[in-house]
Amino acid sequence: MKDKNQGRRSDIIEKIKQRSKEELNPQKLANELLAGDKNALASSVTLIESVKDSDSVIAAEVLRHILPHSGNSLRIGITGSPGAGKSTFIEAFGMFLLKLGKKVAVLAVDPSSESGKGSILGDKTRMNDLAAHPDSFIRPSPSSGNSGGVARKTRECIFLCEAAGFDTILIETVGVGQSETAVKSMVDVFLLLSIAGAGDELQGIKRGIMEMADIVLVNKADGDNLNRSKAAKSDIQRALHLFPPSDSGWIPLSLLCSSINSTGLEEVWNSIEKFESQLKTTAYFKQNRENQSKWWLKESIQEKLLNDFNQHPAIKKEKKILEKKVQAGELSVSEASERLVQLYKSK
Amino acid sequence: MKDKNQGRRSDIIEKIKQRSKEELNPQKLANELLAGDKNALASSVTLIESVKDSDSVIAAEVLRHILPHSGNSLRIGITGSPGAGKSTFIEAFGMFLLKLGKKVAVLAVDPSSESGKGSILGDKTRMNDLAAHPDSFIRPSPSSGNSGGVARKTRECIFLCEAAGFDTILIETVGVGQSETAVKSMVDVFLLLSIAGAGDELQGIKRGIMEMADIVLVNKADGDNLNRSKAAKSDIQRALHLFPPSDSGWIPLSLLCSSINSTGLEEVWNSIEKFESQLKTTAYFKQNRENQSKWWLKESIQEKLLNDFNQHPAIKKEKKILEKKVQAGELSVSEASERLVQLYKSK
Repeated sequence: MKDKNQGRRSDIIEKIKQRSKEELNPQKLANELLAGDKNALASSVTLIESVKDSDSVIAAEVLRHILPHSGNSLRIGITGSPGAGKSTFIEAFGMFLLKLGKKVAVLAVDPSSESGKGSILGDKTRMNDLAAHPDSFIRPSPSSGNSGGVARKTRECIFLCEAAGFDTILIETVGVGQSETAVKSMVDVFLLLSIAGAGDELQGIKRGIMEMADIVLVNKADGDNLNRSKAAKSDIQRALHLFPPSDSGWIPLSLLCSSINSTGLEEVWNSIEKFESQLKTTAYFKQNRENQSKWWLKESIQEKLLNDFNQHPAIKKEKKILEKKVQAGELSVSEASERLVQLYKSK
Repeated sequence: MKDKNQGRRSDIIEKIKQRSKEELNPQKLANELLAGDKNALASSVTLIESVKDSDSVIAAEVLRHILPHSGNSLRIGITGSPGAGKSTFIEAFGMFLLKLGKKVAVLAVDPSSESGKGSILGDKTRMNDLAAHPDSFIRPSPSSGNSGGVARKTRECIFLCEAAGFDTILIETVGVGQSETAVKSMVDVFLLLSIAGAGDELQGIKRGIMEMADIVLVNKADGDNLNRSKAAKSDIQRALHLFPPSDSGWIPLSLLCSSINSTGLEEVWNSIEKFESQLKTTAYFKQNRENQSKWWLKESIQEKLLNDFNQHPAIKKEKKILEKKVQAGELSVSEASERLVQLYKSK
């Protein structure tokens, strides 16, 4: 599946290359995107995801044009371990939103894609109806780059989708690795998808994820599984009560849903709307987005600065030596870091 | 109380200043410390905590001498919200350990001390017996410096205590702010102190803390409170079961104790010993300490490098301007950070 998607991406890149220089005019691409052209959106996303320097230059230019027109959407993060039914939920929930007249974009941050463990959203066959709808846009996780970089690019793709007129953006991620913090930092509301199990409802979910969730959904609450799901919902609600309220003042909810029967989806959406309205009343919604901008700028500076530091050949060599000395108790951490920073600054 | 401690610290600093240069010989101080001299230990801790450059130079020298003799202790982190009874627990548990023949040092990382909200371990009156015992050493949290810096210094104080012969180090912190991650990264085992309440057992504890704990203690399990404490213990045990096992393979425990009646302390200690022996069998114990060294070196480099970056006048000025532009959607995060890093490197 992944190869197929990669193939699709390469095709698009090829097409872009074949375009005349006039067509690759970033201003023109941005204008088409702003007019709601999904092909222009797809091309722009591909440019953002590309690791080629020449593409990055064009991508930055497109971004510059569309940024002032971004921001007008509700950004919804969705996480959950493999098996929780994320794809089926997104298909069902996405269709529900389309019926409400929403324009729905689906993006993904997949930290596992880089290590070749297969990617999420790769299997579009489970999202047939959603993918085919004119008011939806689905994009799998980019397959290259480091985790932080991938997440940053996904955030930029949110802006592209918003500028193209999508008002509800679903950002999918898996409940492992560092990607949750990154996704939490680019969305307005964060959903955790769970399923009933024998006391291990959240097995496979990284420690700390549950406390990030604004709403925990017990999915697959249908048929024989309904009673077990109700029990799981109560267990989770109890656990959520052990946590203090989040900074936003919102008290996390636990809800039941079935993606197959499309039940509970309305309640999910009502809760999200309640969340949005509560946070907009307290001005936390806007504040949160401003804090997120600051956070990403800080992260980006840190990433660029430390990358430059860590890739410096002389630093690399010396760091290895000093690390061993620190572990052996021959050198203090302060002294080792001081020496390395001074060495960097002298270069 | 804080003023009194600060006064005490200034007194010690004054005494050190008054010593002849021969007495301030770092090698001599280190030798006294290695011989188990508690005054030499106190002076060395004061030097580590000092923000004066001249003190830092001596402190670094002392550290260099004692580092090869550090490491021989069990490092126990203790966190819990105000009101959970941390001071009384440490007094009771410390006395219990002394009776087992242990040499007990108590340190604290207090992120609130810098903002003037009062400091933990400031109230030594609640630790009278422990403070008076010849085999114990108690040191309040340093009152100045940034949070990361304070934690780093506390970690260095652990090494000083170990070199002076203390084999059991308790590191206290409060369940708020970023200090828990720092404390978790300097201890072998992490305890969370909690008390029974009406469904809000961990009220006041920062989100994510419970998932860091190796052992959760329900304190004040005595008198009228016993039944409620038993219920709280079950609730917590249920919640802990919702989390996946930690990297160490240890399954977190919930235990009852009463600091006032000194009950449950033996069970706490038995669990800690079981934890230690299990982790030493799998070599995770040593691995964890090596990872901690690496983590602190990485943190320290990052702190020093970013401090230097952020304090650069030209960077400061430009960052403010670009931050506003990013928040207003006039500039992308990537472009803003790239410009700032290039500006820094050109200086």
